[in-house]
Amino acid sequence: MSLENTSSNRSFGGWHKQYTHTSRTLHCDMRFAIYLPPQASESNKVPVLYWLSGLTCTDENFMQKAGALQLAAELGIAIVAPDTSPRGDNIPDDPDGAYDFGVGAGFYLNATEAPWNRYYYMYDYVVKELPAVIEGHFPVSDVKAISGHSMGGHGALTIALKNSDAYRSVSAFSPIVNPTVVPWGQKAFSNYLGEDTSTWLEYDACALIKKAETHLPMLIDQGDGDQFLHEQLKPENLLLAAEKAGYPLELRMQEGYDHSYYFISSFIDDHLRFHAQHLK
Amino acid sequence: MSLENTSSNRSFGGWHKQYTHTSRTLHCDMRFAIYLPPQASESNKVPVLYWLSGLTCTDENFMQKAGALQLAAELGIAIVAPDTSPRGDNIPDDPDGAYDFGVGAGFYLNATEAPWNRYYYMYDYVVKELPAVIEGHFPVSDVKAISGHSMGGHGALTIALKNSDAYRSVSAFSPIVNPTVVPWGQKAFSNYLGEDTSTWLEYDACALIKKAETHLPMLIDQGDGDQFLHEQLKPENLLLAAEKAGYPLELRMQEGYDHSYYFISSFIDDHLRFHAQHLK
Repeated sequence: MSLENTSSNRSFGGWHKQYTHTSRTLHCDMRFAIYLPPQASESNKVPVLYWLSGLTCTDENFMQKAGALQLAAELGIAIVAPDTSPRGDNIPDDPDGAYDFGVGAGFYLNATEAPWNRYYYMYDYVVKELPAVIEGHFPVSDVKAISGHSMGGHGALTIALKNSDAYRSVSAFSPIVNPTVVPWGQKAFSNYLGEDTSTWLEYDACALIKKAETHLPMLIDQGDGDQFLHEQLKPENLLLAAEKAGYPLELRMQEGYDHSYYFISSFIDDHLRFHAQHLK
Repeated sequence: MSLENTSSNRSFGGWHKQYTHTSRTLHCDMRFAIYLPPQASESNKVPVLYWLSGLTCTDENFMQKAGALQLAAELGIAIVAPDTSPRGDNIPDDPDGAYDFGVGAGFYLNATEAPWNRYYYMYDYVVKELPAVIEGHFPVSDVKAISGHSMGGHGALTIALKNSDAYRSVSAFSPIVNPTVVPWGQKAFSNYLGEDTSTWLEYDACALIKKAETHLPMLIDQGDGDQFLHEQLKPENLLLAAEKAGYPLELRMQEGYDHSYYFISSFIDDHLRFHAQHLK
């Protein structure tokens, strides 16, 4: 496994770096970004927050726009941001180039339907391959938390609910919490997973939270001015499912905030401090 | 004068907004962004930091990437970011579409040569028209500071040196301090201002600092890992000119930092606190 370092920027005393590597899970070259805080060294391995981005994003959006690096540097937390799907000339894409399916829209699942099932394995990539790459190449420990935005909030919640031994805490901004009942999720899941909707429930936070045996600390921020709130996000469905399951969930509705990084940046410090408590 | 509001995002309790207006100075429609901190109201007008961006940028780069809004909200400072040149179908541009001249590269001067001299009047736009628009439409006072990056650092320094009564303080990241002797400046000035290089000195911080009668507080940050440092930026020339003129200048060389927003975001809080002292 070789990594190619494609950019390096000093930031807040640490380093933001981008790498490419050939993913055996996704059968293509993938780029990711890592922020290494100044405290990170072979003799002082730091914990890692994985950040999963939303539709159309790459590894760059969060690193450039979230304003997270200052507090990550202070707290001594590394941040890893993968891409949002396989990408490249050989990767099948939405025939109409839609923004909400195919490239840039991997939905953090393992596809079962052709032609997607050779490449669209973002679940395994995020859960297995990427942490092994990160822990094998950088001065980080195996202590992890996970967070994300919108489609990436869906990814963070479902991955944490299915792998509660691997993460200390989970958070999300504006997540798609119930993809099986909303247009974005139904389009993606019917294509990636086929028409048997019982298989979809493996990637639906509202379904997964009902059968979760271990309860991870969970924080969600949602703007009430978000244009996607009522049609695509439906956080009230997760709140209800969590209450029924006795799963402790802190859902904060933030007055007047929208779906953008202007919202994420306003509350990312709260999420970093929340994770830092549990990463100690 | 009418303003059209084209976007609004709540951020850190205040608002980031974009507007377009027809500029009588530039003879085209211009977009700018403003961040209004939560304290701003008609009964509590707040001071303004003007931010001038670098080559290829628009009003968006700083607002999305600098991580400045959190502390601006805390300190109660509005931030205004104009575009970097006139823009639109009728605007003459570099015939080869180069990034360093024409659209996206207005260099904050008043052009004297055709065809540029009908449109490329960014100096007057930033010094006169834009503050009048801002002070006429938003709950801000006429107390101002100015800052910028690279070409925008050149803009901030030259505008402050020529209008020391209008600004309380000036700062810059990686500024082009001596454009008359570097390739970026020579290309732009020969086209916008013509071959008589004596006129160029009106827009060269190293020349202007020698004859400045009023001394504004001035802070500059420069990364020593900046790829443009030795060919285009030459901060040592301004330091020497300032020393000769007895002009107090704090120039901080930052070890390992480059020309990107990963650098700017690392030190923007220092600049905001520096300006806040003088904006009181």
